[in-house]
Amino acid sequence: MMQDPEFIRGDSEEAPGLTILQRGPDNLEPAFSSALGSSLTPADRFYVRSHFEVPRIEAASWRLAIEGEVDRPFEIGLDELREMPSETRMALLECSGNGRIYLESIQIGIRWERGGVGNAEWTGVPLVALLERAGIRPLAVEVILEGADEGDFKPPQHETPGKIRYARSLPLAKARKEEVLLAYRMNGEELAPRHGYPVRAVVPGWYGMASVKWLRRIIVTDRPFHGFFQTMEYAVWERQHGLPTLVPVSEIQVKAQIARPAPHEVVPKGTCYRILGAAWAGESDVAKVEFSDDSGQSWATAKRLGDPIRYAWQFWEHDWHVPNTPGRRVLMARATDSRGQSQPMERDTDRRDAAISHVLPIEVEVR
Amino acid sequence: MMQDPEFIRGDSEEAPGLTILQRGPDNLEPAFSSALGSSLTPADRFYVRSHFEVPRIEAASWRLAIEGEVDRPFEIGLDELREMPSETRMALLECSGNGRIYLESIQIGIRWERGGVGNAEWTGVPLVALLERAGIRPLAVEVILEGADEGDFKPPQHETPGKIRYARSLPLAKARKEEVLLAYRMNGEELAPRHGYPVRAVVPGWYGMASVKWLRRIIVTDRPFHGFFQTMEYAVWERQHGLPTLVPVSEIQVKAQIARPAPHEVVPKGTCYRILGAAWAGESDVAKVEFSDDSGQSWATAKRLGDPIRYAWQFWEHDWHVPNTPGRRVLMARATDSRGQSQPMERDTDRRDAAISHVLPIEVEVR
Repeated sequence: MMQDPEFIRGDSEEAPGLTILQRGPDNLEPAFSSALGSSLTPADRFYVRSHFEVPRIEAASWRLAIEGEVDRPFEIGLDELREMPSETRMALLECSGNGRIYLESIQIGIRWERGGVGNAEWTGVPLVALLERAGIRPLAVEVILEGADEGDFKPPQHETPGKIRYARSLPLAKARKEEVLLAYRMNGEELAPRHGYPVRAVVPGWYGMASVKWLRRIIVTDRPFHGFFQTMEYAVWERQHGLPTLVPVSEIQVKAQIARPAPHEVVPKGTCYRILGAAWAGESDVAKVEFSDDSGQSWATAKRLGDPIRYAWQFWEHDWHVPNTPGRRVLMARATDSRGQSQPMERDTDRRDAAISHVLPIEVEVR
Repeated sequence: MMQDPEFIRGDSEEAPGLTILQRGPDNLEPAFSSALGSSLTPADRFYVRSHFEVPRIEAASWRLAIEGEVDRPFEIGLDELREMPSETRMALLECSGNGRIYLESIQIGIRWERGGVGNAEWTGVPLVALLERAGIRPLAVEVILEGADEGDFKPPQHETPGKIRYARSLPLAKARKEEVLLAYRMNGEELAPRHGYPVRAVVPGWYGMASVKWLRRIIVTDRPFHGFFQTMEYAVWERQHGLPTLVPVSEIQVKAQIARPAPHEVVPKGTCYRILGAAWAGESDVAKVEFSDDSGQSWATAKRLGDPIRYAWQFWEHDWHVPNTPGRRVLMARATDSRGQSQPMERDTDRRDAAISHVLPIEVEVR
């Protein structure tokens, strides 16, 4: 959309297992039905969301600047960053457009099905360590993360201020949280170019747009940042005194997805079929997963597997007694988080084309 | 644009002297060449900017609510408002899209020529008087002005949250200024329905979008309001650490416009022709007006007429020695305010489709 790219839907030759949603910049999606082979999504099966072409960055010349409302602005290179104390933590990333193909009224943007989500183990330096080294000034309110990816800036129906880089801000309170990493490893390997090599942000609990790839600059600011990617894109409406007010997309909403069966799979009638899926809950925890085989009229509690890990997904299963009557059947899953928030049945249109977390049906063929 | 209205350009039968730019809602513009007959623009020759259909409001049942971050929320009717101490002050209003027809790259929105500006005398109660009666709480930062005009909300390319009303906020500092009025008279007459009957805001020094018509609610808020008309519309880019950040349109930029001659007028060669125009300067004062007959290569200082009145326009004139050579001639005017800001020669594309204040040429025919 930014550079009049090609919208297509087809298999990728260079990235087997990923569907090409868009070329130039590339946006790639795995089938969610094949996503749960392991709790960690392999890097080459992890969804790719690009706003501009992948920037080619040499590790030797890469520098990250920390500036703005800080006492001691500085730059850091890759070797020095790798020598700092690091942490490894599991975190799910979900594209805020995941599920957009289910929104009939949205005709533009990347048409994610249900594969715009993945779970990985990230290694890097907590952002707060760099902020503290720079010395945050008292007036600071936000931290802008700027990537090296850039391109033509074409807001619809308006003049262009020329080239821009991808940038996104975090409130200072989130930027200071220990879980926010400047990551240089993904599942124990160096980051792939399309996943942000050499260093990307990982902002656990927030939709993927916050986890800025190809980091080049960290800017502490004394006022909210209203850049393109938190106003024109990745922003939703919230009501204030009954009036819609535009706010940047932030926390991932609670969600469960069915991985098995795949949509339109043929399921043998009268058998016991093990439904498999994953659920996640932003900055909260998954407290319940439910399953329905009657379009949401009745719900059965599914079994969550393993111990929950904050910010990661949790697998779940349910033994479904497949009815004896052949025909099409609509299956649904619904999660509830530890704050009591459940997935709604209907789309909240205030969320525009982002944060799609209402219950999404899967249709199968009982035969 | 909000309601798929008709875009047309033609004379209005119901409003002689106004050109119809759009119907349903109506947007009407006088020719600027006929605007300077009097320092006060008559109400029926004043530009009309409507986002939705004109709401039909009965004076007897009209109520204005003052609520939000106040100690004593209240409602007030028209009789009671008229009984409060009132002020009468001259103020210019300019549509932030005035001159949009000169922007080749902007293909949508109302195609204002140069007539989206007028100067009137407004009578009403200072907004600050009502705010003080309600008691502003310490956490207050903005004041939202909500109109009674409403319609379908269709942000481009996104889902609709349904019907909305026109609303715009002011920072508390501006809302408290003595010049901001809740006006019920225009040039000594009751407001016409299309100008905001029974009560509208008049925010001198700010583009017209701040002067909300058909007021129904004043909401004091503890956070910035990012409504549709200060993000999707009426917002411009400002650079913060080199990154574009979206800010609501606010103060009117300094500008001079030529009223005489009209564009494409035939001017007799070798004569002395009296150029006439008006200039204005937002919250500042006009300090200089210049004239050029050679596409801006050389400039002569024009003569400003009368004493300047803050927030109003000031007429100016210049005796132009029309060259002896027949042919097309490009005329320009340029104003400078008392802060030293001059009109730029080139469009600042960060301003999107709003706040069009670069020097606009007039072409005439010397014969």
